[in-house]
Amino acid sequence: MTANADLLKALRDVVGREHVLHKPEDLLVYELDGTFDRALPEAVVFPGDTEEVRGVVRACNARDVPVTPRGAGTGLSGGAVPARQGVVLATARMRRILDVDPVERTAMVEPGVPNIRLSEVAAEHGLFYAPDPSSQKACTIGGNVAENAGGPHCLALGVTTNHVIGMEIVTASGEVEWLGSRGPDPTGYDLRGLFIGSEGTLGIATKVVVRLLPVPETVVTLLAIFDDVESASETVSAVIGAGLVPAALEMMDRVTLQAAEAGLRCGYPPDAGAVLLVELDGIEEVVLGQVTQARAACNEHGATEIRTATEPAERELLWKGRKGAIGALGRIAPNYYLLDGVVPRSKLVETMGDVSRISEGYGFPVANVFHAGDGNLHPCLLFDEREEGATARVLEAGGEIMRVCVDAGGALTGEHGVGFEKNRFMPWLYSETDLENMRRVRGVFGNEGAFNPCKVLPEGAGCGEMAHQKGALAAAGPDAYV
Amino acid sequence: MTANADLLKALRDVVGREHVLHKPEDLLVYELDGTFDRALPEAVVFPGDTEEVRGVVRACNARDVPVTPRGAGTGLSGGAVPARQGVVLATARMRRILDVDPVERTAMVEPGVPNIRLSEVAAEHGLFYAPDPSSQKACTIGGNVAENAGGPHCLALGVTTNHVIGMEIVTASGEVEWLGSRGPDPTGYDLRGLFIGSEGTLGIATKVVVRLLPVPETVVTLLAIFDDVESASETVSAVIGAGLVPAALEMMDRVTLQAAEAGLRCGYPPDAGAVLLVELDGIEEVVLGQVTQARAACNEHGATEIRTATEPAERELLWKGRKGAIGALGRIAPNYYLLDGVVPRSKLVETMGDVSRISEGYGFPVANVFHAGDGNLHPCLLFDEREEGATARVLEAGGEIMRVCVDAGGALTGEHGVGFEKNRFMPWLYSETDLENMRRVRGVFGNEGAFNPCKVLPEGAGCGEMAHQKGALAAAGPDAYV
Repeated sequence: MTANADLLKALRDVVGREHVLHKPEDLLVYELDGTFDRALPEAVVFPGDTEEVRGVVRACNARDVPVTPRGAGTGLSGGAVPARQGVVLATARMRRILDVDPVERTAMVEPGVPNIRLSEVAAEHGLFYAPDPSSQKACTIGGNVAENAGGPHCLALGVTTNHVIGMEIVTASGEVEWLGSRGPDPTGYDLRGLFIGSEGTLGIATKVVVRLLPVPETVVTLLAIFDDVESASETVSAVIGAGLVPAALEMMDRVTLQAAEAGLRCGYPPDAGAVLLVELDGIEEVVLGQVTQARAACNEHGATEIRTATEPAERELLWKGRKGAIGALGRIAPNYYLLDGVVPRSKLVETMGDVSRISEGYGFPVANVFHAGDGNLHPCLLFDEREEGATARVLEAGGEIMRVCVDAGGALTGEHGVGFEKNRFMPWLYSETDLENMRRVRGVFGNEGAFNPCKVLPEGAGCGEMAHQKGALAAAGPDAYV
Repeated sequence: MTANADLLKALRDVVGREHVLHKPEDLLVYELDGTFDRALPEAVVFPGDTEEVRGVVRACNARDVPVTPRGAGTGLSGGAVPARQGVVLATARMRRILDVDPVERTAMVEPGVPNIRLSEVAAEHGLFYAPDPSSQKACTIGGNVAENAGGPHCLALGVTTNHVIGMEIVTASGEVEWLGSRGPDPTGYDLRGLFIGSEGTLGIATKVVVRLLPVPETVVTLLAIFDDVESASETVSAVIGAGLVPAALEMMDRVTLQAAEAGLRCGYPPDAGAVLLVELDGIEEVVLGQVTQARAACNEHGATEIRTATEPAERELLWKGRKGAIGALGRIAPNYYLLDGVVPRSKLVETMGDVSRISEGYGFPVANVFHAGDGNLHPCLLFDEREEGATARVLEAGGEIMRVCVDAGGALTGEHGVGFEKNRFMPWLYSETDLENMRRVRGVFGNEGAFNPCKVLPEGAGCGEMAHQKGALAAAGPDAYV
């Protein structure tokens, strides 16, 4: 039996023949996530429960085969790409909502449950799950845990780690453990907090206990139109400075608005330079007071128009341009590179100027859609990968933009993770001692290097090839593997 | 030069002769914190800044001398007790508030700043620091970080880890690092979160960046008197069930009330069986509505009287009994053992019954003062350590109570930490694999076992003697070391 045949047999023994993919044409879908990087796994397995997850991890560990967990594959930093090949462990079959407790306001779900499904089910009890990544219709709770996912509504309510109170995990070494709990805070080191955002390098969550929140009594959405990003940014500062913490505070720039208008007919004026979405929620009398304050801030800083909506359908309409913005950018160029950086709020305008200059220098149009409230930038570089060298250049431009964020006192990622995309930049932020400590963290649950290898930290045997592969693949075009 | 003389010289070289204590009579104060356990250090050093902290850690590491960090020594789980002797590193000289930024609503402080001092300084800007342990007049921010301290007002606002955004630390291995940041969330593993609550086993925070909150516009305190704990507990469930999240929700039982009344003249009726303190804060119109709801809940569940206060002085009066309760217990017995356990809120009444039975069985009166809102019990066993064997028996009773909490699905500590007090109970909650993973966590910053040894985890060379010492000391009385 070849090594591969032995592996396939072991995997089939654990999950059943029908839940193991191994033919090249079946594997193709699993070679990438939402980024450029790709690597073809030897097999993709779909365990049905915790025991099967453990069985898969152990079968791989026994054979020194790398394991890479995968949710919906919507990640934007290469976290689900099997960088050293091996086995992709996909949670697609583990999508049960195990229970919803409306009294304690918690729910326990399997990792493959799509984010939006959880809020849909919770809605029957007047509750919702707060973190709402833009990919929420597809992305999974397990993936959200791995990336400590955020979303437009995380400004006031916090990101995933503020809403996940406990998890059953299968560790990198193939043990089943509980981190955190359903009830009181756990005793001892905060392993729950450590696991969340560890980008799938410590283990796989197999059950996730989340906190649910009551659906707010009143929600008001404001859409304010400005001539330029500076005015909109000043408004953001004024809103925050007035002590308001809106549920969401999102900005779109001119390039984005034009694409959204062309594609989605949102009714933006042709000369709009920036749009700000401000959402306020809570108890009616408080919200109405806040709306007055927010409108005043918009007017004082040059809003040319303010639209207000309170009914769900009207609010949906105001959000339409924001939610469809990235897709609409396809009208400008066939490919985009969506970046994720964070700067102190006070450096927002300056940094956007730098981003413009860098992208102009490379000849790429840039669209900006972002969480203005917390300084989380998402510059989107538009390009055509069919142009020779375009992918390599767009990656280079992305690196320069990340450097600008770090130099402004910011961070390499607000919510997309480091993954394989940015691990080479980690030394900009961290000393060799820091990185060594993080390597120890990666080993806490027995990861000896083969569990989601080549992610987060800038090293790892066999990871160099992958980096090289990136350039080669870019040159060879998207069909290189077919 | 003896080993001790060599150590003293090295320490003096780092911090100056006047900042090293070594005479037995000077060391005595540093052999214990707020618990029973004690061990005499060889020296106590008071570094003045980060560089001196690093120097002390390195001097000790080079000589294989254990280091135990110490804030104000108010801890309640033995965290600051030098379990394997060696050097106590006290932060008492590092008590500067380095800056307060009212725009970003952050402050940076040294670890020895007393908790209350931070809020006093922040008050000049209309801000405050949320976590408020009962010891807040004495306890330090550095100690709060170590223990992830809570307090009565943490129900709505969260504990220390929700309010500390970044730290400069000196690691167990003597390196200076930054965890978290002043601005955006850090990139990579959440080492900030890991450090907070690690009970001084990973390193020492030398600068702490905290988030400050605006002082609420309106604060209303209700004090409701009940015939028994059951009625008060049902009220707690009703208040939470109504969707209210009070700023504080505290309960005192009959034993506590009688002691408080005798000592502090709070005006409690002689037949009161339980008192509930409910504090509501926020925007006036919202708070007033919540007060109506809370009063209704109290009335429905048999409150015999409800007092309401809005002015600071009146509110202070309602809090007087709660804040002075533990001290007032001295009227009943010369010593107390203040426990800290957590149970699911729904198990509160049942667990208190078990606590009563256990303490009755041992013949110790028990007083209960606790954070009812989050199921955090603080049974206080009253005893006289001069009675032969009393200390040993009270510790045994404490162990049984902890077991009851764990069996109810709770945790070993809500806010006091595991320390040396409860590390032997950790196997009740954790498997050997879990504990092994936690040992790896303890090593993340290079702790090879001599940095705050014998804490959190149930093992460590030389820790057995300490456990033994506890019993011996208890038998020998409080002056055994003098």
